[in-house]
Amino acid sequence: MDFESYIRDIEDFPKKGITFKDITPLLNDTEALYSASIALCDFVCDEKIDKVVGVDSRGFIFAPLMALWLKAGFVPVRKKGKLPFTTISESFELEYGTDILEIHMDAIQKGEKVLVHDDVLATGGTAKAVCNLVEKLGGEVVQCNFLIQLTFLNGAEKLNGYDIKALLNY
Amino acid sequence: MDFESYIRDIEDFPKKGITFKDITPLLNDTEALYSASIALCDFVCDEKIDKVVGVDSRGFIFAPLMALWLKAGFVPVRKKGKLPFTTISESFELEYGTDILEIHMDAIQKGEKVLVHDDVLATGGTAKAVCNLVEKLGGEVVQCNFLIQLTFLNGAEKLNGYDIKALLNY
Repeated sequence: MDFESYIRDIEDFPKKGITFKDITPLLNDTEALYSASIALCDFVCDEKIDKVVGVDSRGFIFAPLMALWLKAGFVPVRKKGKLPFTTISESFELEYGTDILEIHMDAIQKGEKVLVHDDVLATGGTAKAVCNLVEKLGGEVVQCNFLIQLTFLNGAEKLNGYDIKALLNY
Repeated sequence: MDFESYIRDIEDFPKKGITFKDITPLLNDTEALYSASIALCDFVCDEKIDKVVGVDSRGFIFAPLMALWLKAGFVPVRKKGKLPFTTISESFELEYGTDILEIHMDAIQKGEKVLVHDDVLATGGTAKAVCNLVEKLGGEVVQCNFLIQLTFLNGAEKLNGYDIKALLNY
């Protein structure tokens, strides 16, 4: 399927000079939504996955779909203060300042095989923080997959050593 | 399946005196995740659904799953400023002040049949705003369904006239 035809460029969003890749036309089409969820799972090949971790909030869309296809559980990672149970946290740098992500301390068991998912791989700061959270809990990151990789932002460098896959590379 | 056994009570979250219903143990279990997504779809019976609308961010978890089972598209509703394309908006009252939700203006076509989903029905303000957005675009709200309904907050009253369903009622 030509997934790229379902991605819409939005100029100057969220701020001037940025071209935003809008995935909502893909989500809006039942065939494209289905096919993208399958294609993302195909990246994992025959590897057994115990948990699929999705990053708040657009990572919440495909991570549960993959969890179903892969017969895994779904684990949300959220911004500080959003998860209700006991959490561990990881801070990471943004363009200006830092941000903090959290995961429930009982979300992943020692030795579990984990697929990390987000919609877009940009600079890699978010995904790296998520990998750190998974590993702090004793999980093994089998792969980080994304709908979209913005290759010119070199996120894959920050995720050096991890298996990185994306459906669309710009 | 005994879905209730997968819901965890968290006392004093997000603030003192509130008992929060934590759905993450349900999400973490692949069987419970699968069964809950099927049980939510069963509420729709044989009605044809064109679009499943999910509310940012926990509504993003089950709405795409239902979209797949029901052969529908998935439409995100988000807080003001988060959606990149042209939107219409709807404001609604919170305990203190107001909040604004947005939907892409091309997300739903006139006459489409729409399932509205969020994880929790509390006072109903959010769901009512989502129904208004759907109807402004010419869609027909077939049902609002939820994982959890907090019946003591009377959200169903604010959604008078709509078909309301929830997997768990407290």
